[in-house]
Amino acid sequence: MFTIDMNSDLAESFGAYRIGNDESILQYITSANLACGFHASDPVVMAKSVKLCKENHVAVGAHPGFPDLQGFGRRNMVIPPEEVKAMVMYQIGALDVFCRANGLTMQHVKPHGALYNMAGKDYALAQAVCEAVAEVNPELILMAQAGSQLQKAAEELHLTVAKEIFADRAYEEDGSLVARSKPGAMITDEDEAIRRVITMVREGKTTAITGKEIPIQADTVCVHGDGEKALLFVQKLRKAFLSEGITVQKLVN
Amino acid sequence: MFTIDMNSDLAESFGAYRIGNDESILQYITSANLACGFHASDPVVMAKSVKLCKENHVAVGAHPGFPDLQGFGRRNMVIPPEEVKAMVMYQIGALDVFCRANGLTMQHVKPHGALYNMAGKDYALAQAVCEAVAEVNPELILMAQAGSQLQKAAEELHLTVAKEIFADRAYEEDGSLVARSKPGAMITDEDEAIRRVITMVREGKTTAITGKEIPIQADTVCVHGDGEKALLFVQKLRKAFLSEGITVQKLVN
Amino acid sequence: MFTIDMNSDLAESFGAYRIGNDESILQYITSANLACGFHASDPVVMAKSVKLCKENHVAVGAHPGFPDLQGFGRRNMVIPPEEVKAMVMYQIGALDVFCRANGLTMQHVKPHGALYNMAGKDYALAQAVCEAVAEVNPELILMAQAGSQLQKAAEELHLTVAKEIFADRAYEEDGSLVARSKPGAMITDEDEAIRRVITMVREGKTTAITGKEIPIQADTVCVHGDGEKALLFVQKLRKAFLSEGITVQKLVN
Amino acid sequence: MFTIDMNSDLAESFGAYRIGNDESILQYITSANLACGFHASDPVVMAKSVKLCKENHVAVGAHPGFPDLQGFGRRNMVIPPEEVKAMVMYQIGALDVFCRANGLTMQHVKPHGALYNMAGKDYALAQAVCEAVAEVNPELILMAQAGSQLQKAAEELHLTVAKEIFADRAYEEDGSLVARSKPGAMITDEDEAIRRVITMVREGKTTAITGKEIPIQADTVCVHGDGEKALLFVQKLRKAFLSEGITVQKLVN
Repeated sequence: MFTIDMNSDLAESFGAYRIGNDESILQYITSANLACGFHASDPVVMAKSVKLCKENHVAVGAHPGFPDLQGFGRRNMVIPPEEVKAMVMYQIGALDVFCRANGLTMQHVKPHGALYNMAGKDYALAQAVCEAVAEVNPELILMAQAGSQLQKAAEELHLTVAKEIFADRAYEEDGSLVARSKPGAMITDEDEAIRRVITMVREGKTTAITGKEIPIQADTVCVHGDGEKALLFVQKLRKAFLSEGITVQKLVN
Repeated sequence: MFTIDMNSDLAESFGAYRIGNDESILQYITSANLACGFHASDPVVMAKSVKLCKENHVAVGAHPGFPDLQGFGRRNMVIPPEEVKAMVMYQIGALDVFCRANGLTMQHVKPHGALYNMAGKDYALAQAVCEAVAEVNPELILMAQAGSQLQKAAEELHLTVAKEIFADRAYEEDGSLVARSKPGAMITDEDEAIRRVITMVREGKTTAITGKEIPIQADTVCVHGDGEKALLFVQKLRKAFLSEGITVQKLVN
Repeated sequence: MFTIDMNSDLAESFGAYRIGNDESILQYITSANLACGFHASDPVVMAKSVKLCKENHVAVGAHPGFPDLQGFGRRNMVIPPEEVKAMVMYQIGALDVFCRANGLTMQHVKPHGALYNMAGKDYALAQAVCEAVAEVNPELILMAQAGSQLQKAAEELHLTVAKEIFADRAYEEDGSLVARSKPGAMITDEDEAIRRVITMVREGKTTAITGKEIPIQADTVCVHGDGEKALLFVQKLRKAFLSEGITVQKLVN
Repeated sequence: MFTIDMNSDLAESFGAYRIGNDESILQYITSANLACGFHASDPVVMAKSVKLCKENHVAVGAHPGFPDLQGFGRRNMVIPPEEVKAMVMYQIGALDVFCRANGLTMQHVKPHGALYNMAGKDYALAQAVCEAVAEVNPELILMAQAGSQLQKAAEELHLTVAKEIFADRAYEEDGSLVARSKPGAMITDEDEAIRRVITMVREGKTTAITGKEIPIQADTVCVHGDGEKALLFVQKLRKAFLSEGITVQKLVN
C-alpha cells in the first residue's frame, strides 16, 4: 500500500494582518506546520489554529523560524547553532502548550524558510535544530528533505524523519532542489507536477533537471493554500492520489 | 513551624543587554520567576537561567508579561482577556520546554509588572491569566497578592495560590499596596522592613499605613537582586528568618 | 466657496503582510496619512508609499502610533508624555526623509488609533504630541477632531489644526464621537452618511444622536479604502462633493 | 598640521536596558555614532543622547544597523540592497529629527556592526548604503574603512569619506582587518596600540600582521567607552595625540 502525507504551512497571520486561507486548505491536508511567533503568527493565531486543526483532524506540527517577522523568516541570518537550538526549543514549547490544552499530541517539527534551507546545507545548524527537537521530545518526527544535512543530523540523533517532496520544483541529480534563479526550476504545468509526484510516491524516483532518473523518498508532500489557484491544485492532487490508490494520511495514525 | 518562600524575578537579560545579578541572588532565594521573552529575556537567556536554577536547587516559575520589551512590561496595555490568556499560555509553554529538557517540573506562575497589577484589580483579566495557567497545568501554583482579583479568580478555578508579600512596601487597610506616588509608600528602613516581614510570617498580620493592624497571609516574599545593596538586604532577611525559626523553602517540596 | 480635504490611512502593509488597497484609494483622496513603522508599515513600504502619493498628487502626512505592531496601534498603552513626544518625533523624522528624497514637503501629522483617541481626551498627552510636531516643524498641520484636547494643545502651540470629521459616526452633543459600543454609533446608511457630511461642510453643523443640532467644523473627512464597498463609498462621496459645489483639495495648495 | 577625529558608538541603551557609559566617553571624543532604534536605542534614548552630544560639543552621526535588537546588529542578515537602502534612510531620518530640534546639523553616517562589515565587502550593499546617505543629504560624511567597498561606493556618489582606523586591531597587507579568529588579530598592549595609531595619523602608514609596511589613511579613530579600562585608554590616547601635536577635532568644523 502506498501512503502519503500532505503538509502545508499555516497560522501565518499576525495581529491585524492576514496571510493564508487556513480554513479552506485544512480540508485537504493531513499535517499542518504552524508558525510559532518568530517569523509569523502570534499566540492568538496559534490558539485558534490548533483548534482548527483539531476540528479538521489534521496533525499539528511546529514550524519554527528565525526571529524576523519583517522578513517572514525568509532572510538568511547567521546565528550560532547553540542559540538556534534555544530558539527552536522555545517555539516548539510555545506551540505545544496549545496542543496539550486541546488534548492533542504534537506530531512533527518542520523548520521554516531560511532556517530550513540553511540547516539543510549546514550540519552544525541541522544538529542544533535536531537536538532541540530531541530534547523537547524524541518522539517528534522531523520533516526534512531526503539527503539534506537535516536528515543526516536527525538520524544521528535517532529521530524519525519524514522525507518531504515538492510538487512544483525541479530536482538536481543529487536530490537537491534546483535553485529558483535557474531556468526550469519551477514545474509550472499542473498535470506534469501531479504526474511527477505520483511517480515519486509510487516508484520512489523522479527525473532530475538533467534528464537523469534519480531515486527519491516521499513521505510527505508540501502544498500551499494561498489563493484560489493553489487551493484548486491541492484538491486536484489529492484526487489524483486517491485515483492512483495512494492513501493520504498523516504521519502518525 | 513557620515557613516562607523567597522569590525573585530573574532571566531579565536580553541579547547583548544585561539586567540583574542572577548568579548571586540564586544563592539566597527558593523560587525564581523567569521572564519568558515578552517583556524581557530571550530563548538563550531562558535556557541558561533554567540550568542555573537547577544547579542552585531553586524552583522555576514562569513570569509572563505584556508584549512590551521597550517598556519592560511595566506599561499598562489594554488587551482583551481572551488574547491575554493566549499570551500567558504561550509564555508558560516556551519556558516549560526548558524545564522539561532539564528534568524539572515548573512550580509556579507569577504575572509580571503591569499584568500583575492590572490583573490584581480586574477580575476578567485575572480570570484570563488563571484559565491560562489551569489549561496548561492545574497543578501549577499561582503567586498573587492576598485579596487581589488574581487570588479570587485562581480559587474559583481551584488553583493553589501562594500569597505574596512585599518587604519594602506599605499596605492600605484593605491589604492592597499603598501607591508609590503617596508619601510613606516605601519602607526604606531595612530593619523595619525585616521586622514587618517577620511579623507577617509569624503572626499573619501587619500595620497598615493608617496605623491599623490588619491580617495578611504570607506564603512567599518578593526580593530583588539588582545591585549590591539589594543583595545584602536579601542575605540579611534570610538570616533573620533563620534566627526567628522560620524555615525558608520553596513552595513545593 | 466650500472646500474639503479627503484623508485616508495608508502604508499599513508590513513585510510580507498586506493591508489596504493603496493604489486604488489614492485616486480619490487628497491627503494620505502614512504609517511610520511603529503600529504598521516598514521602511520599504514607506519608501514606496511616498512615491505613490507623489505620482497621485496626494499630500503626505505622518501617522504616528504606539509601538504595538501586534495590536496595530489600537490598544491603549500608558506611556509617559515625554516618551510619547520622542516616539512621535522619531516617526515623523523617519517618514520625512522619504518626502525630502522625493522633493515633497510633508503636509500634516495625524496620530493613529489609540494614540489619537487617548490624546484626544488627555491634555498632557495631546501636548506631548503637539510639542513633537512643533519641534520638528511648526508649519506642519495637525489633524484632530474639533473640540478635542489635541485641538486645544495644538492651538496653544500655534499649530494649524485641520478639523477632522467622520462620515460613518454619530456625534454626541459635545461634538465627540458616540462610543462604538452604544446603539446608533455607526451611520450605516450610505446616503444618510453623505448627506450628513455635506451638511457639516456647507453649513458647519450636524445633528447629534440626541436629535439636537450642534455646530461642527470640517476641514477634512476621514475615508477608508479597505474592500470594494469602502472604495465605492469614497467615490460616491467625492462625486457628491463635486455636485454640491464643494471643492475637494488638499490642506496646503 | 595633523588632525584626527575620535569617534565612538553611543545611544545603545534600550528601554530599561543600559549599555555604555555615554556621559563619560563624551568628554573625550569628537564624533558620536548614535544607534537609531534598529539594533539598539529607542526614541527616548536618542532624544537624550543628541542633547548630551550638544552639551559636550560632540558632532552627531547616525549609526544605522540591521533590524535585529536581539543580535545587537551583529548577526549577518541577507537583505536585498533596495530594502537596506530604505532601512538606512529611515534610521537617518529618525535621528535627524532630534538634531534639527536641537539646532544641530548631522555630521556623518557610519553603518553598524554586521552592516558595516557586509557593506565593506559587498559593493551592491555598499552602494545601497551610500545611495541612502546621498538621497537624504549629500553633505553627510560617510565613515568607512579605507579600501572598503563602502569607500568605493561613496566616492562613486561623490560623498565625502572619513577613513576610519582601529587602535586595537591588526591589519592585513591589503589594509583590511585581520579576522578576530586569527592569532594576533587584537592589539592588546595599550602602548603599542597608541604608537601604531600615532604612526597611522602622522605618517599615513602602519605595519601589517605580516611585518610589511603598508599605507593607511586615518581621518577618524574608533574608540570604546564600555568599562573603566576602555575609558582610561581613550584618555591616554587623547593625551598622546596632544603631546604628539595632533589636533583632535570633529570632521566638520
